[in-house]
Amino acid sequence: MDKNQTLNLRRKHIGPSCKIFFSHDPIKIVRAKGQYMYDEKGQRYLDCINNVAHVGHCHPDVVKAGAEQMEQLNTNSRFLHDNLVLFAQKLQATLPERLSVCYFVNSGSEANDLALRLAWQYTNNRDVITLENAYHGHVSSLIDISPYKLQHQSDAPSPDVYRGKYRADHADPATAYADEVKDIIDKAHSKRRKIAAFIAESLQSCGGQVIPPAGYFQQVAKHVRKAGGVFIADEVQVGFGRVGSHFWAFQLQGDDFVPDIVTMGKPIGNGHPMSCVVTTKEVAEAFMSSGMEYFNTFGGNPVSCAIGLAVLDVIEKEDLRGNAVRVGRHLTHLLEKQKEKHLLIGDIRGVGLFVGVELVRDRTKLTPATAEAQEVIYRLKEEHILLSADGPHRNVLKFKPPMCFSVEDADLVVEKIDLILTGTLP
Amino acid sequence: MDKNQTLNLRRKHIGPSCKIFFSHDPIKIVRAKGQYMYDEKGQRYLDCINNVAHVGHCHPDVVKAGAEQMEQLNTNSRFLHDNLVLFAQKLQATLPERLSVCYFVNSGSEANDLALRLAWQYTNNRDVITLENAYHGHVSSLIDISPYKLQHQSDAPSPDVYRGKYRADHADPATAYADEVKDIIDKAHSKRRKIAAFIAESLQSCGGQVIPPAGYFQQVAKHVRKAGGVFIADEVQVGFGRVGSHFWAFQLQGDDFVPDIVTMGKPIGNGHPMSCVVTTKEVAEAFMSSGMEYFNTFGGNPVSCAIGLAVLDVIEKEDLRGNAVRVGRHLTHLLEKQKEKHLLIGDIRGVGLFVGVELVRDRTKLTPATAEAQEVIYRLKEEHILLSADGPHRNVLKFKPPMCFSVEDADLVVEKIDLILTGTLP
Repeated sequence: MDKNQTLNLRRKHIGPSCKIFFSHDPIKIVRAKGQYMYDEKGQRYLDCINNVAHVGHCHPDVVKAGAEQMEQLNTNSRFLHDNLVLFAQKLQATLPERLSVCYFVNSGSEANDLALRLAWQYTNNRDVITLENAYHGHVSSLIDISPYKLQHQSDAPSPDVYRGKYRADHADPATAYADEVKDIIDKAHSKRRKIAAFIAESLQSCGGQVIPPAGYFQQVAKHVRKAGGVFIADEVQVGFGRVGSHFWAFQLQGDDFVPDIVTMGKPIGNGHPMSCVVTTKEVAEAFMSSGMEYFNTFGGNPVSCAIGLAVLDVIEKEDLRGNAVRVGRHLTHLLEKQKEKHLLIGDIRGVGLFVGVELVRDRTKLTPATAEAQEVIYRLKEEHILLSADGPHRNVLKFKPPMCFSVEDADLVVEKIDLILTGTLP
Repeated sequence: MDKNQTLNLRRKHIGPSCKIFFSHDPIKIVRAKGQYMYDEKGQRYLDCINNVAHVGHCHPDVVKAGAEQMEQLNTNSRFLHDNLVLFAQKLQATLPERLSVCYFVNSGSEANDLALRLAWQYTNNRDVITLENAYHGHVSSLIDISPYKLQHQSDAPSPDVYRGKYRADHADPATAYADEVKDIIDKAHSKRRKIAAFIAESLQSCGGQVIPPAGYFQQVAKHVRKAGGVFIADEVQVGFGRVGSHFWAFQLQGDDFVPDIVTMGKPIGNGHPMSCVVTTKEVAEAFMSSGMEYFNTFGGNPVSCAIGLAVLDVIEKEDLRGNAVRVGRHLTHLLEKQKEKHLLIGDIRGVGLFVGVELVRDRTKLTPATAEAQEVIYRLKEEHILLSADGPHRNVLKFKPPMCFSVEDADLVVEKIDLILTGTLP
């Protein structure tokens, strides 16, 4: 079909709330490989944003594992199957030992919703503390705790040391931000409400590529557990080695931090719909003690688990964490040089292949350069590079490419950004 | 791995709330084809229960479509792709014209949760009326409306003309059951509460294979719409031609009935994690008017849609609806003869390949024969036939096999049931 036909059919039959990239001139992608996507005319795009295609679009090992298992068996987890238990075992090996019990589900939203159910059942409490600008999913329980979608009054401040309440010049922003969570707990208690959980992405993603100061999670966990609640680390966007130095982004906080529940999603199946919740034996047993069975039709089926196992293998075999360290360092270095050159660049922050570039009109007032960020995105699209802008002011350029992103890819995109900001691109 | 190793790893790493069939001696299934599953020793099982493997386990056309698309592209719906719009168009063609707008998601639970969000936004009301014994999914919003999991006080009575409040001897059970819904609405109004939606499976599945009397949905819809609410038909378990004579089970109620929202799941991808919500333009526009984008990472990806298209093709090409009519009729006929022979069989009810056999100890008092139903299931397993028992008393044998189930399969399972009930099986 020609692009306009596709677009017209989409307008007719797909919910208008489902937005498309570059809606005035959307891209029709027909194939992809590694970090490249190709449109219907064969034009190649460099993909800097698809964190779901974690080990590279259409990785042959992953495709093969999925196709072979689809041919053999695809059924629910009410039958025994090796793929389920081997995948669980292999996932567990990436985590602190306490986190040993898995629930396989189909999306990050299902994972976070189940995490809440686990927390409610384990603690017998109800309140959930969430961060400003957080996004945890699209099911109704998560819209309620996603200020990115729906503003609230009582969310904890985002631990953003660039634009947030306590900044890099603060003596101890980790403690200051954690004390804010304690205040929320105290206020809840004064209203006779009780805390079931604190939930946060290990690095805030849609919220603006925020890297919380080390030690923040430990202190939050102490306050939350003292109040009877649990700590849920949402790794849906940032897990599976994206940060390079560690397999999970929460591990950046230090070895002394272990969440009670970890949720996983997007990259886990390189695009295949699957996700996972991992928790402790104690939480799992409390959930079972309700007597309610948990059944998820597709969760943990042999095809999903075969794909999940293949993704873990590729991360290891191709040393994608090492690549994330090396390319991430190179990319950050190039961007830092751009910051020296272009006043519009207010902040570069990132770990591994999770990097944010915050554009501001004024480096003191931090006036968000929202329109400028959009302009960069649109101009990059014309150069066949896919990047996006996010954060509460939509002024943070987000890098979260497939993990096979190369030094040359980084060179190319930064060169183009330089030309755009310099105004020398036609 | 040997079966015990698999089981031990499962005990260690999989949430204990995730139950396994025949937990004292679970089955390890390693491959499946059509309506047959095979254990690690090569023993064949006849599958009478896997309604997810709709067109037959591992159907080659479905596997091929999935594998080929996985090799080409698997990304999100923010890019244009033909598979998405062609699948939406083809699904729409099976539905009344008014139901024209699709949202693709990953599970029946995500579909029903989104249906609630659509209803809340469109009506600006909050209350949801659900049926006794209903099950609509595992995310927290749906546990709240699933009395199968969690009993409530104020659910509408299940329109069960065998065991329910109004039975086959009632002059007009459809009206009587619909009037019960009207009473619930009136009570809600007297408490200044307002109705957002009525939700029901088109045929109650876990609730005991209940076939509502024709005309019931029309009358319920009239009452609910008058109160400002919408009618959500949950086709997750029973859609896609299972009833044979129609593509959707709600169509059994008559051509004059059109729901406002239809949710689909299980069979849609023959085991691939996907599902869909279809609604009217008016509801979709109201949802958009909230200004909140709806983004589902995996929903409507090109692989899921390729698989969905293949499933629709196979249903048509292999005349699986015709098969459901023919084999369903044969099965029901055989079971009716068993009912004449065995007092334990209280009721046979079904449409196409959705058939329930309710076992009772007393045909007047309808005392549920729960233990007997379990015994039948366990004895059938020994004969390598997979059947299950469900309903509020777990005394209803559920047939919902892959749609390629044959006359010979029906002969075999009914013969074995006969021998079990006669007591002549060793």
